[in-house]
Amino acid sequence: METVLRSRSKTVTIGAEQPFCIIGERINPTGRKAFAQQLRDGDVSTVTADALAQVQAGADMLDVNAGIPLVDEPELLKSMLRAAQDAVDVPICIDSSVIEALEAGLSVYDGRALVNSVTAEDERLDEILPLVAHHGAAVIALANDETGIPETPQQRLELARKIVTAAGDHGIAAADVVIDPLAMTVGADTEAVTTTLKTISLIRDELGVNMCLGASNVSFGLPQRHVLNAAFLPMAMAAGLTSAIMSTAPVCVEAVRASDLLLGHDAWGASWIAAHRARQAAEAQAQEAAAAR
Amino acid sequence: METVLRSRSKTVTIGAEQPFCIIGERINPTGRKAFAQQLRDGDVSTVTADALAQVQAGADMLDVNAGIPLVDEPELLKSMLRAAQDAVDVPICIDSSVIEALEAGLSVYDGRALVNSVTAEDERLDEILPLVAHHGAAVIALANDETGIPETPQQRLELARKIVTAAGDHGIAAADVVIDPLAMTVGADTEAVTTTLKTISLIRDELGVNMCLGASNVSFGLPQRHVLNAAFLPMAMAAGLTSAIMSTAPVCVEAVRASDLLLGHDAWGASWIAAHRARQAAEAQAQEAAAAR
Repeated sequence: METVLRSRSKTVTIGAEQPFCIIGERINPTGRKAFAQQLRDGDVSTVTADALAQVQAGADMLDVNAGIPLVDEPELLKSMLRAAQDAVDVPICIDSSVIEALEAGLSVYDGRALVNSVTAEDERLDEILPLVAHHGAAVIALANDETGIPETPQQRLELARKIVTAAGDHGIAAADVVIDPLAMTVGADTEAVTTTLKTISLIRDELGVNMCLGASNVSFGLPQRHVLNAAFLPMAMAAGLTSAIMSTAPVCVEAVRASDLLLGHDAWGASWIAAHRARQAAEAQAQEAAAAR
Repeated sequence: METVLRSRSKTVTIGAEQPFCIIGERINPTGRKAFAQQLRDGDVSTVTADALAQVQAGADMLDVNAGIPLVDEPELLKSMLRAAQDAVDVPICIDSSVIEALEAGLSVYDGRALVNSVTAEDERLDEILPLVAHHGAAVIALANDETGIPETPQQRLELARKIVTAAGDHGIAAADVVIDPLAMTVGADTEAVTTTLKTISLIRDELGVNMCLGASNVSFGLPQRHVLNAAFLPMAMAAGLTSAIMSTAPVCVEAVRASDLLLGHDAWGASWIAAHRARQAAEAQAQEAAAAR
């Protein structure tokens, strides 16, 4: 199954036979005080800078979130989306828990967006799926409901199945539902990652839909988070994860591209070798420039 | 199942509930011309240096191989093992395809060694298993036979099963047979790694024995091998691999220790956090020393 997203002029396809889709996590004010204050003051320059930096670092898509307490989130999300779309030409994941913000975001988005997110809660499904269908978008769907996050992979699968069925009832194809199998920190529960990995392979085997998760969650509260995230991603990819909202730190992007090659999604290493040569050329150029000084 | 190896005074346990066992690959003259020449000249100083460096870098065990064409391999392996045992106190994987060399190696080894390796070939089983049994050692067993390396995971499982049965006939417990599920370069076959991963999980589910492979094989002929190896190891560990003969480059060792934590084999991250603090302390000390100069 393939989920097709579009920006102004570019298409990104998420799928089990495609290279992994890296969705940059950075344009999100949660836990970024200075950025949140800038946004409150109407300054979206960091959105522009973060969009450019993440695409430069290897992001295939960008997540954009405007979740700041007591702001006019629909208006802020619109201005952030405009800034991101002006800066880069990659599809965007419009990220909000507020239905009016998702609606506002979709109204200014040029292309086919990924809406982030719906859950298996009936009320959320009834609110958000019609909006997704109306805009012809795709949607990330979290495998939790009003009772919280299920403990077992089997329970998460059942919620995923419920969402795919509900989406179908609204005319949304299973290919346009991207399930979030839910990643939590291993710092609070030693079984957290194994449960997530089992959920991923179960959903792959039973539903065959695309999946996306917040990869950085697994390392929350632990030191050297990038190294932990970079070890988690290959495991999740081997289990069947097809995209992630994640850091574009070099160690994480390299782990993903290496895994693409290892899992046979970069035939004969063409992309891997091209990236290596580009890096060598850039280094040689930098050395020449330094020598000429 | 747990495979227990011993050096003079240290014990290492390989097992599914244990931290992954890192076996340093470096003490091997294959592809190391200068080292091979030193060994021919009777100079084992590089063995000492490599043993120290790999244990310092995080190796739990060391592989020692004396495979140089036209040398007296039994004698050379003995002197290399003596040098390694004098330098470090970790269990050793005695690595040779020559039965007399394995015999000589076992005769000078102080502890409980891992013999590397037997295959599913009848002749090899008949030669090597009595030796392993006589010395009370454990053995790495490659899942291939006289017809070569099987293509499918199911075929590799059957060879692994044959070896475990043959070992039992010689009084060697299944816990002392460490199966090599065979890793080949993804540069020659895009399916190579997925086949290896499926073999690992199949052997884990069906036989439950420990497994060890030459992790660096997956990246043979490709650029940035350490990064590829570091992405492969978390996948293989999540599938059930319990040890590897591998590079002790920091990116590889970190990927393994991160995966231990993610897979619940480093409860609450105790080892991960301790390693992080030790690194911070060392950095602070280095800075102080630099400032005092």
